[in-house]
Amino acid sequence: MIEVEVKARAPEDMAERIVSLGGELMAVENHHDLYFNSPLRDFKRSDEALRIRIKEGGARLTYKGPKLDPLTKSRLELTVKIDDALQMEEILGHLGFVLSARVRKQRTKYSYQGVVLALDEVEGLGSFLEVEAQAEEDIDLQRQKVLLVLEQLGLCQSIRSSYLELLEEKRLGHAGPARGEQI
Amino acid sequence: MIEVEVKARAPEDMAERIVSLGGELMAVENHHDLYFNSPLRDFKRSDEALRIRIKEGGARLTYKGPKLDPLTKSRLELTVKIDDALQMEEILGHLGFVLSARVRKQRTKYSYQGVVLALDEVEGLGSFLEVEAQAEEDIDLQRQKVLLVLEQLGLCQSIRSSYLELLEEKRLGHAGPARGEQI
Repeated sequence: MIEVEVKARAPEDMAERIVSLGGELMAVENHHDLYFNSPLRDFKRSDEALRIRIKEGGARLTYKGPKLDPLTKSRLELTVKIDDALQMEEILGHLGFVLSARVRKQRTKYSYQGVVLALDEVEGLGSFLEVEAQAEEDIDLQRQKVLLVLEQLGLCQSIRSSYLELLEEKRLGHAGPARGEQI
Repeated sequence: MIEVEVKARAPEDMAERIVSLGGELMAVENHHDLYFNSPLRDFKRSDEALRIRIKEGGARLTYKGPKLDPLTKSRLELTVKIDDALQMEEILGHLGFVLSARVRKQRTKYSYQGVVLALDEVEGLGSFLEVEAQAEEDIDLQRQKVLLVLEQLGLCQSIRSSYLELLEEKRLGHAGPARGEQI
């Protein structure tokens, strides 16, 4: 499954803008994300990600492939639900994977015209909006859709960096949004 | 969790012997096991295993560490239930793991004095009995227990090779049980 996604920094009135546009509140989730690096290749360079996400509905293991285009964050995403995050973390450790970061956030999810709007309050980073769609074959169509929704919400500066990368950039003292794209 | 385990070839009357001794039938399961090798080190040499097991009750991912003693198959075993074996197989593929073998078997499970007796009919190999206990700290005690039960069942030749290894030995034309230990 390809996850078609754009992300932007969210202004203070983001929730109001979403509701005004007609977005419907779906859920509020607390995410505790554990990111792992591979012993084979540096996932920062290869633009891949391996993550255990622990949230209210249970835990999941997710692999994300490299981003597929220069404008969005679209990429292959494979996910399995797991019943025990600690055991999974231990298994990954024995297989040579190294815990590289933890990201905690509160995600408020809205549904709007077949896409998901995820308003994230990320610990240490602030507020972001992710507009997400899933695609099997019609990737271009979904890509146009998420970019259009971002525009409708008045956001014109998309960010391709992951929260993991943004936290790393913050730690290293880099200012401003990295790898932003004018859309 | 340490899985304390001994295995032996099972004679034809094995089920009768178990029931005569007082073993209680727990379940009959069909296992389809997918074994993966690591891109970092050959799991055959390091005596580790990574397996997806698909059975009636759902799928599981299991890592097994190297065997801990020369007489039994006791080893670290870490397992998570997963909701999608195909996605897990795809994730492992992207992480560099290679499918090395498939093992299919029917397992009839009995309970007897706190241990599990697993009578396995393995496709291409025949019948085996595994006597299994799980231990946190009392590994020696559990080891004595599973060896005693094996003896009570009239089996004196334990096998330390996995089904995977036995299938590989068969494929290479090696005769007889490998790495058997007189107990």
